[in-house]
Amino acid sequence: MRWPTLIEDGNGLLILDQTRLPREAVMIRLGSLEDAAHAIRVMQIRGAPLIGATAAYGVALGLADDAGDARLAAVIETLAATRPTAVNLHWALARMKRVLQESAPATRREAAWNEARAIADEDKKANAANGIHGLPVITRIRDARRGSNSSLPQEGLTSSPPPPGGGGREGVRTCCDGDVVTVMTHCNAGRLATVEHGTALAPVYAAHAAGLPVHVWVSETRPRNQGLLTAWELAEAGVPHTLIADNAAGLLLMQGKVDLVIVGADRIAANGDTANKVGTYLKALAARAHGVPFYVAAPLSTIDFACASGTQIPIEERAAEELGAGAVPVANPAFDVTPAALISGIISERGIAAAGELGQWRQ
Amino acid sequence: MRWPTLIEDGNGLLILDQTRLPREAVMIRLGSLEDAAHAIRVMQIRGAPLIGATAAYGVALGLADDAGDARLAAVIETLAATRPTAVNLHWALARMKRVLQESAPATRREAAWNEARAIADEDKKANAANGIHGLPVITRIRDARRGSNSSLPQEGLTSSPPPPGGGGREGVRTCCDGDVVTVMTHCNAGRLATVEHGTALAPVYAAHAAGLPVHVWVSETRPRNQGLLTAWELAEAGVPHTLIADNAAGLLLMQGKVDLVIVGADRIAANGDTANKVGTYLKALAARAHGVPFYVAAPLSTIDFACASGTQIPIEERAAEELGAGAVPVANPAFDVTPAALISGIISERGIAAAGELGQWRQ
Repeated sequence: MRWPTLIEDGNGLLILDQTRLPREAVMIRLGSLEDAAHAIRVMQIRGAPLIGATAAYGVALGLADDAGDARLAAVIETLAATRPTAVNLHWALARMKRVLQESAPATRREAAWNEARAIADEDKKANAANGIHGLPVITRIRDARRGSNSSLPQEGLTSSPPPPGGGGREGVRTCCDGDVVTVMTHCNAGRLATVEHGTALAPVYAAHAAGLPVHVWVSETRPRNQGLLTAWELAEAGVPHTLIADNAAGLLLMQGKVDLVIVGADRIAANGDTANKVGTYLKALAARAHGVPFYVAAPLSTIDFACASGTQIPIEERAAEELGAGAVPVANPAFDVTPAALISGIISERGIAAAGELGQWRQ
Repeated sequence: MRWPTLIEDGNGLLILDQTRLPREAVMIRLGSLEDAAHAIRVMQIRGAPLIGATAAYGVALGLADDAGDARLAAVIETLAATRPTAVNLHWALARMKRVLQESAPATRREAAWNEARAIADEDKKANAANGIHGLPVITRIRDARRGSNSSLPQEGLTSSPPPPGGGGREGVRTCCDGDVVTVMTHCNAGRLATVEHGTALAPVYAAHAAGLPVHVWVSETRPRNQGLLTAWELAEAGVPHTLIADNAAGLLLMQGKVDLVIVGADRIAANGDTANKVGTYLKALAARAHGVPFYVAAPLSTIDFACASGTQIPIEERAAEELGAGAVPVANPAFDVTPAALISGIISERGIAAAGELGQWRQ
């Protein structure tokens, strides 16, 4: 059995408590608005798409059978205040508000459950489609590798200088082990970040299911160590992977051990600038320095067309305690912004677009 | 009292056990060659200059009163095998070998103590000089800031785009707080990495001593968290500082909150390519992307003129356990290589040189 991230349970929700992974897999029950808001705030659930779905269910949990406009507004306000950066939260709440304002108070509770269910179902479908659209990015790299064995050009894959370290690669599977395509990711943008399938990892899972050998470089992702979540779900799925300190990403790219970087997103601005877990930007700079493609994968609900560019995205500052350094003064921004110019393409349920050409997906 | 990193104690050494910092400051005694080799290997002492000095004393600890050539060779071999990347280790051992081969066996033990003492004393002097030579880098930034208030040009300091996050800087001291110069560093290249004064932090301490306000962004430096050593020694010295996750470096540079990056080095190739703690290269890329000066500070003993470029520097792979992730497959390279082209200058006891012009310091 694979542990679900979120399922309905009568008049409540069961969620996999991600603060206890990978030590133990425990489902906990959310029975109230307060439970849902707390779960988002303390990151019992995290990942932009899963935050959106949980917030939608949180609205349902917060409405009594005959909820008026004032209660609806208060419920939405409580959930909106949990986390600032992931736009899926605000997207889901805006959608719930729009639908529920059209419902009579007597039917709102039921309408809320139905709409939350629709949001969760659509997330599954969007991420599955994302995997299908992203798979060719991996296939092309495999094909280019095969082509390179017969001296065909490998556009975008050839600019690494000779590796430092004397080329020693003992104990580490690399991009050069036959047909294996090595993918680097950051944070957890796998199925644990979504209702199902994942965002950045959806193409990886699609490749694995298709029998195409992949290997994933998993960044620890300080300070919350969501890389351990990624390692946990990749192990569960049988996908080969190696954990690294975030600091090692530049060296691996320089050594030519990375074919492709794919990350998720917490908010994509209209111009393609992408907020994602802090540290993403450093990987994007290093990928560019070595000519390695850098993709962002996310459902359309992560694109904020009302946000013109990355400079307008609020960056959440989280508690100093997350670094576990005692009384030392700490700054702990949870996200950074990768400029569109560093992004090779954005993968969504609609296909792949250049980061600067998202207008085609405006709905 | 400030805890010394290494002092003589009769026929042994006392070292500050850095694996127990910052939890507790404890001096431990090294009484044998094996103690010294162990201390280097498990990082009870670390930092390229301090490794060099400890290895020199390790030779003295390993020699009996009448040590022949075979014993001398075996002692040096044992110490040389402890860690591969820091060239100061090999530099110190080569110097000990050269001096001791010229001594009669009967006087070798005393000669070894004398030479180790000379190496330690020279390290103190070199780092103090490094601080004096590096101070003007900080002073010039302060002066450029003052100049910019009257609209003078600030070469190399003006390319940051508008900060993401709405410019909110609550709770964080920034480069724009009056005259404060903000310095970002990586790992620990402070006095704990040396016999005294530090390398990257030597100019910072010189500025602090001169009454020039500085603030240091301290990177956690996973997986060994040497940033906590840096925070500990900066607190001891009264220098304002803020700890960050390594991942946050790119955002801070993008937000214009960093005036200057200074790091130490474990080995500098003849062409200026610099091996330093893994993660340094990512900071160098981000500094370049935002036009922020990036300096390397190290004694001349860190320059390996026999090593033509960074591709020849061996990169130490350390134990998976350092990441503390249990049974997850791990890659743990301890260093990376920053190309000379990303380095604004190299600061040593001889002054400041362009990374591509180290030949002038060849002795």
